[in-house]
Amino acid sequence: MSSQIKYLLDETQMPEAWYNIQADLPGEMPPVLHPGTGEPIGPQDLAPLFPMALIEQEMTRERYVDIPGDVLSIYRQWRPSPLFRARRLERALGTPARIYYKYEGVSPAGSHKPNTAVAQAYYNKVEGTRKLTTETGAGQWGSALSIACQAFGLECQVFMVKVSYNQKPYRRALMEAFGAELIASPSDRTAAGRAILAKDPTCIGSLGMAISEAVELAAQAGDTHYALGSVLNHVLLHQTVIGIEAIEQFALAGDYPDVIVGCTGGGSNFAGIAFPFLGRKLRGEQDVRVIAVEPAACPTLTKGPYAYDFGDTSHLTPLLKMNTLGSTFVPPGFHSGGLRYHGMAPLVSYVLQQGLIEAQSLHQLEIFKAGITFAQAEGIMPAPEANHAVAAAIQQALRCKEENKEEAILFNLCGHGHFDMQSYIDYFAGKLQDYEYPEEEIAMALAGLPPVARQANA
Amino acid sequence: MSSQIKYLLDETQMPEAWYNIQADLPGEMPPVLHPGTGEPIGPQDLAPLFPMALIEQEMTRERYVDIPGDVLSIYRQWRPSPLFRARRLERALGTPARIYYKYEGVSPAGSHKPNTAVAQAYYNKVEGTRKLTTETGAGQWGSALSIACQAFGLECQVFMVKVSYNQKPYRRALMEAFGAELIASPSDRTAAGRAILAKDPTCIGSLGMAISEAVELAAQAGDTHYALGSVLNHVLLHQTVIGIEAIEQFALAGDYPDVIVGCTGGGSNFAGIAFPFLGRKLRGEQDVRVIAVEPAACPTLTKGPYAYDFGDTSHLTPLLKMNTLGSTFVPPGFHSGGLRYHGMAPLVSYVLQQGLIEAQSLHQLEIFKAGITFAQAEGIMPAPEANHAVAAAIQQALRCKEENKEEAILFNLCGHGHFDMQSYIDYFAGKLQDYEYPEEEIAMALAGLPPVARQANA
Repeated sequence: MSSQIKYLLDETQMPEAWYNIQADLPGEMPPVLHPGTGEPIGPQDLAPLFPMALIEQEMTRERYVDIPGDVLSIYRQWRPSPLFRARRLERALGTPARIYYKYEGVSPAGSHKPNTAVAQAYYNKVEGTRKLTTETGAGQWGSALSIACQAFGLECQVFMVKVSYNQKPYRRALMEAFGAELIASPSDRTAAGRAILAKDPTCIGSLGMAISEAVELAAQAGDTHYALGSVLNHVLLHQTVIGIEAIEQFALAGDYPDVIVGCTGGGSNFAGIAFPFLGRKLRGEQDVRVIAVEPAACPTLTKGPYAYDFGDTSHLTPLLKMNTLGSTFVPPGFHSGGLRYHGMAPLVSYVLQQGLIEAQSLHQLEIFKAGITFAQAEGIMPAPEANHAVAAAIQQALRCKEENKEEAILFNLCGHGHFDMQSYIDYFAGKLQDYEYPEEEIAMALAGLPPVARQANA
Repeated sequence: MSSQIKYLLDETQMPEAWYNIQADLPGEMPPVLHPGTGEPIGPQDLAPLFPMALIEQEMTRERYVDIPGDVLSIYRQWRPSPLFRARRLERALGTPARIYYKYEGVSPAGSHKPNTAVAQAYYNKVEGTRKLTTETGAGQWGSALSIACQAFGLECQVFMVKVSYNQKPYRRALMEAFGAELIASPSDRTAAGRAILAKDPTCIGSLGMAISEAVELAAQAGDTHYALGSVLNHVLLHQTVIGIEAIEQFALAGDYPDVIVGCTGGGSNFAGIAFPFLGRKLRGEQDVRVIAVEPAACPTLTKGPYAYDFGDTSHLTPLLKMNTLGSTFVPPGFHSGGLRYHGMAPLVSYVLQQGLIEAQSLHQLEIFKAGITFAQAEGIMPAPEANHAVAAAIQQALRCKEENKEEAILFNLCGHGHFDMQSYIDYFAGKLQDYEYPEEEIAMALAGLPPVARQANA
C-alpha cells in the first residue's frame, strides 16, 4: 500500500488555461443590472473600474481562457500547489475515508488569493493602469494584491476592515513590506466612509463598506482601477487553477473525490477547487458531491434569499443576483474576516439554485476545535476561514466512519493561519463565542434595499 | 533557455541516511570534557540528558546514519523541501550570477528545525522518555520540538528567552497549539534561573541561560530528557538532509554551486546545507566555497577564540572546543533570537579552523534591507536569522556583477518570518539599530571562565 503524502506536479504540468463553468451551466446567468437604472449593463459600464480584458472574462461563455505567459511566470513561484493525503488525520479520526487537501498556503500571501491578484495586476498593467484600490478583510486579499502590484510596478491602496486592521498588525506589516498603503475602513478618505462614521464613529467596518470606499476612489481617478478579491466571475475563473491541478493530482493518486468541501465568503476559493470538478459532472464525465461551508454568523447561502443586491454597503456597485443577507448587514466581529461578506458570488449562488451543490453553516467554536485537531495531526495551522472547510471535512470523515464508507473527501485548505494567531490566542483564552443567527439585523438589511433593487426583485 | 523556478524531488527521492562529516574530516575532533573533572567524557556521562541512540550518533565516525522509517514518515509531511532558482532576484540585482535557495520554511514549524526535532523525539520515545525539556530563542526550535513531541506523544516544556517571549506572542500560541508548556527564561522554576534573577531581576535572557534551566530540570527527573536544537554533532547530522537533497536538486538543474552561504547561530542550518557539499570537497569530488554568516552583535566565528567553553551560562553542560564569546556573555537584544548564542557547533568551529570555510559578520540594518529586497523579488518574507544568509548571498551576487562572473550561489533560506513580523514593524518604524561589537562584555565573559575551562585551554 502506498504511503505517499504529497502529490506534486512540476511547473511544466501547470494548467495553461482557466476553466469557465459558464460554458457548461444549464440555462443562462441572470444579467448584472445598473445601480441607477436597473437595466442590464454592458462592458462600458464597468470600464471605470476594470480593464477591458477582465470585463470580457466576466462575460465570456468560452470554456477555457488562456493564462498569459507573464502570469504563468509568476504562478511558478509557488504553483502547482501540493495535494496532500491527510493520512495522519485519517488515523487520528479512525475513519475509513481517504481525506485529501489542496494546500494553497504555499503562496507568497499564504492563501489562494494571489491566483487572481497576479492576473488582475497583469491585465491592469497591460492596459496602462497606474494604481489599484481594493478592500481586505482578514488581510489575505490585500496581501495578495500588494504582492501582485509590487511585481508589476503598480501602486496599491488597501482599505482594511477596521476590526481586522486592529487584530492583525503582522498582516499589515506584510502588506507594507510590499509597498502597499493601508487604510482602516471606514475611513475619512471617502464620502462613503465619512457617511458611515457620521452615523457610527465606533463602527468596526465590514467588507461591504471597504468595497464602497475602494470603488469610490477608483471611479474618481482616470488612472486608478479597482480590484475585487472574490465574488465576480473573472475572480472565480482565475481560481480554477486550484481544481484543474487537483484533477491531475487525483489521477496521480489513482483516486477521485466523492465529496468536495470548500469554505465560502465571497466564493472564490470554493469555486476554485469545486468548479473544474463540477464541470466534469455537468458534462457527464464523473459525479461528485460538493458542499459549501460558511459561518453561522454570516449565513449567506443557508439563510439569505437569492435576490438582486448591491456588492457594497453604499450601493455604488452594479446589482448582482446572488444569495444575500442585505448589503447593509454588518456581520458580527468573528475571527474569519475573509468570510464576513453579506453576499455570495453569483456563480456560486446559481449552482446552489440549480441543486448542483449543498450548503451548510458552522459555528466559531467548532471550527477552531477542528482546526486544532487538524494542526496536531498534519502540522499546518489553518487560517480561521479554512477551519470551516476543515471542520466540514472532518464531519464527512466521521460520517464515513459511522456508515463504514470508504469515500474520498477533498477539501481546499485555502490558507495558513500564521498571521491569524491572535484568533487562536483568543480561542485558547476562552474569549471566543458562538454568535446567534443575526435574524433581525438581516431582515432589516433585506427590507432596507433601495427601490431599484426592490423593483429588480419584484 | 529554461525558466524553471522550483527544483522538486518527490518523496521516493528523499535521502534515507544522514551524512556525517566526521568520516571525511582531516584529523580528529578534540574530545568533549567533563564539566567537573575536565577529563574526556564517555557515553554514560551524557545518559542523564540524551537517549543512547543520540549519544552514539554524537560520537560515531560512520559516514552515513540510516534515517528510521518512523522519522521518514513524518519528514514526508513537508520533505523534500524545494530548491528555488531566484530568477526574479537575479533580475532585480542585474547580476550574471545564478542564485539558488533551499527553502526550509515549508516545514510545520516554518524552519529547518523539525529535521532534528522529529529525530530526537523519535529516539527518546523509543527509549521510554516521557518528557523533553528545551530552550528556544526566536521560537523556531521550540515550535519544532513541540510539534515533534506532539507527533510521538511526549510532553514538552520550553524555556523561551524572555526578550523573544515578549516579542513573539504568536510563536508562543503556535507552541501551545501543539500542547507545549511555555516558560519565559530566566524563570523561578530552576536554581539556575533563580540565581540569575537574584543578580538581575530585569534580565532579558539568553540561549545560554535557557539551556541551563532546561538541562537542570532534565538532569533531575528520571523520565525526562533534554533536547538541543543546534550545536551538537547529532543535531548537525540530522540537518544534512537539506544539503543531500540540494545535491540531487542541483543535478536536476544541471548546475553546481560555486559558493554556499548559510547563517550561523549554533551552526545547524549552516551545517545542514554545507556539510554534504563539503564532504564532496573533502573527498576530492568537487570544490566549493563556503561562507558562514553571523550577526556583528554576536560575532562568534569572526571574533571569538577557538577554546573550551560551556554550552550554557550556569556551566552545567560538558566543555566543548568551539569558537566562543564566553559562556556568560549576553548578546544584545537584536531581532534574530535564533543567532543570540555565545558558542558555535564544535564541527563548524573545527572546519573553520581547518580553513575549509570562511566566516563573515553583518549588521542588523543591512540584513533587514536585504530581506526586503529578497521578499519583494521572490514573494517570501524571510525570518530575521535567514536575512543574514540572504544579505551575504546578495553581496556575492553583486561581487559577481562587478567581476562579471557567472557563478552559482546557493544559500539556505532556513525559515520564513511570519512569526517575526514585529521585527519588520520595528524596522519600518526606524526602531532597529546596529549594535557595536560588544568587545568589553566578551572579554569579560572570556576572562571569567572557571578554572576547569582555563586548565583545558592552557
